Amino acid sequence: MITETQIVRFPSLRLDGGDTLHDVQAAYESYGRLNSGKSNAILILHAFSGDAHAAGIDHEGKAGWWDSMIGPGKAFDTDQYFVLCSNILGGCKGTTGPSSINPETGRPYGMSFPVITVGDIVRLQQMVASHLGIKKLLAVTGGSMGGMQALQWAVAYPEMVEACIPIATTARHSAQQIAFNETGRQAIIADPNFAGGDYYGKQPPARGLAIARMVGHITYMSDESMREKFGRRLRNREDLSFGFDVDFEVESYLRYRGSQFVGRFDANSYLYITKAMDYFDLGAGYPSLAAALERAASKFLVISFTSDWLYPSYQSLEIVSALRRRNHDVTYCELSSNYGHDAFLVDVGEQTEVVKGFLARCQREVVRV
Amino acid sequence: MITETQIVRFPSLRLDGGDTLHDVQAAYESYGRLNSGKSNAILILHAFSGDAHAAGIDHEGKAGWWDSMIGPGKAFDTDQYFVLCSNILGGCKGTTGPSSINPETGRPYGMSFPVITVGDIVRLQQMVASHLGIKKLLAVTGGSMGGMQALQWAVAYPEMVEACIPIATTARHSAQQIAFNETGRQAIIADPNFAGGDYYGKQPPARGLAIARMVGHITYMSDESMREKFGRRLRNREDLSFGFDVDFEVESYLRYRGSQFVGRFDANSYLYITKAMDYFDLGAGYPSLAAALERAASKFLVISFTSDWLYPSYQSLEIVSALRRRNHDVTYCELSSNYGHDAFLVDVGEQTEVVKGFLARCQREVVRV
Repeated sequence: MITETQIVRFPSLRLDGGDTLHDVQAAYESYGRLNSGKSNAILILHAFSGDAHAAGIDHEGKAGWWDSMIGPGKAFDTDQYFVLCSNILGGCKGTTGPSSINPETGRPYGMSFPVITVGDIVRLQQMVASHLGIKKLLAVTGGSMGGMQALQWAVAYPEMVEACIPIATTARHSAQQIAFNETGRQAIIADPNFAGGDYYGKQPPARGLAIARMVGHITYMSDESMREKFGRRLRNREDLSFGFDVDFEVESYLRYRGSQFVGRFDANSYLYITKAMDYFDLGAGYPSLAAALERAASKFLVISFTSDWLYPSYQSLEIVSALRRRNHDVTYCELSSNYGHDAFLVDVGEQTEVVKGFLARCQREVVRV
Repeated sequence: MITETQIVRFPSLRLDGGDTLHDVQAAYESYGRLNSGKSNAILILHAFSGDAHAAGIDHEGKAGWWDSMIGPGKAFDTDQYFVLCSNILGGCKGTTGPSSINPETGRPYGMSFPVITVGDIVRLQQMVASHLGIKKLLAVTGGSMGGMQALQWAVAYPEMVEACIPIATTARHSAQQIAFNETGRQAIIADPNFAGGDYYGKQPPARGLAIARMVGHITYMSDESMREKFGRRLRNREDLSFGFDVDFEVESYLRYRGSQFVGRFDANSYLYITKAMDYFDLGAGYPSLAAALERAASKFLVISFTSDWLYPSYQSLEIVSALRRRNHDVTYCELSSNYGHDAFLVDVGEQTEVVKGFLARCQREVVRV
């Protein structure tokens, strides 16, 4: 299926930091058909560098980032469900972010864009869902930062969420997770082309952004998956170069992925979105994470992966434990995979089974009520 | 004790890459007294950013990097042993490296310095030991890259090594280890001040080097030790800043450690030494790692740490397994620690016990022979 990105505009959006954004737009795609009761909508929440194009093929022939999970007969079965995905606030793929034009100045926001939170990101998504007339989502789900948004949804709009499926995620960013993000931010800011974020129409901070992405890629894979994929294999050579050109396949891969990222992502969005992740702490302002989750009224399916060292299973278990303390309906699956954090994107066999079963139960119970 | 760094000069050093370096110097320190039979010498091999100042207090009042392990009554007991440590080839603390003057040009080598290997580093150390009249070392030992050197010693100079103690290390750098090093190298090279390595007497690539060091520091700690040390604690503030200054303690720590590193380390040395680590593969050119280790004639004590994810225990077990296949005398200890890779530097209680016991046995057997 060829998919189209839609745009919806809102006059304003109130932010957790105290500011209000004006003339906000959100880009979204949808797959499948919304039923007459509008009770079959599933909201997909993308990870850090994702976009609204979650499934199908776009006009450039590019498959959606979770096309393996969304479509006819797939985990999020578009024969049954209306699947919706919007680019997050602060992004650079159609939704308002630092590269958007500031209506007050007529120039891109750059670093004058306000710092945003996962709460702000979800608030805009709620406006998109309401715009489509959806009063209750059958499910909210996503991996990594998408999982943070799913958890935020369950707490911020409990009456709108039938089921919540956070995958490979955490209820609060850890020191190590903040540390990796901070390293990426500093790599961008250190690039002279960054120019305080005011680089639009000029050379972007390409090298800094590429280095940030290299760090990211290492954390998305596992030691084992890197060993299997690259090992110590040399790149287009028989022997070590005894120089500083590429010797190893893994060096070539990281350099390629780093430079490729520059063409599709905005450095300021990198700063703002990683900051939103680092600020994420669902239990902040509550006596405990369990107390924060008390508001939730969803069923939960929590998924983690054995080799994911960026969002390790213990962080999912903290969520599960907090939910159980408030007697929520929660299922937990730790899936076996060598793919590290990337598993939720690339190793979807078992994930499909558990999601399908869980959604079928949720839908049965909705129909029964 | 106040320690002095000594310098020894050699006319030339042959390198694995085919070049020969001329007018090579090595900086070393020693602690304790060499006995009349010159049979009580222990060679300490430093990690990536270390130096010859392994123990005692230098003229600036700075303690050696392994002072907790070296001294009277400590693991490497200077009442019994003559302990020697030299700065590695390619370094920037007194031994010839890229910041040294190239005798052919009268200017610093910079990137005209030849790419070196762990084999080259050890070859220069062997010349230092021979210069001191030492025919056989009671032990060679080090953590991280120091452990690689210890393994290389055991294979390259089997007749000179009574005992080998590789700690928190590997017999070959993995794809993930290469990937982290490559990211650091690219951060340095991306800094405009790097200027192809020709920055001596000008502004060094301080920001690139600081970012490389930030990545390094994350890998030296563990998720758990970062949680205990920093958690999500804010730095000198009550609330989130909603800006891009430092919010969290962990950000402040990394920025500080990164900028501090610039004052004490040379960016070109970073490139050359990480490359030597990445090139390290003890079994290369042999049918197997076990075949490479067949030449060794030492007793081995292999140590790893439970929370070290940069040089995980499975890599030490590969060494142990290869040694056992050739019926070597090998003891393996996986020590319990939360400190990650840094454990060999900072969590030395149990490490001291196992090293002491092992050295006592080695010395008894030397005396008996």
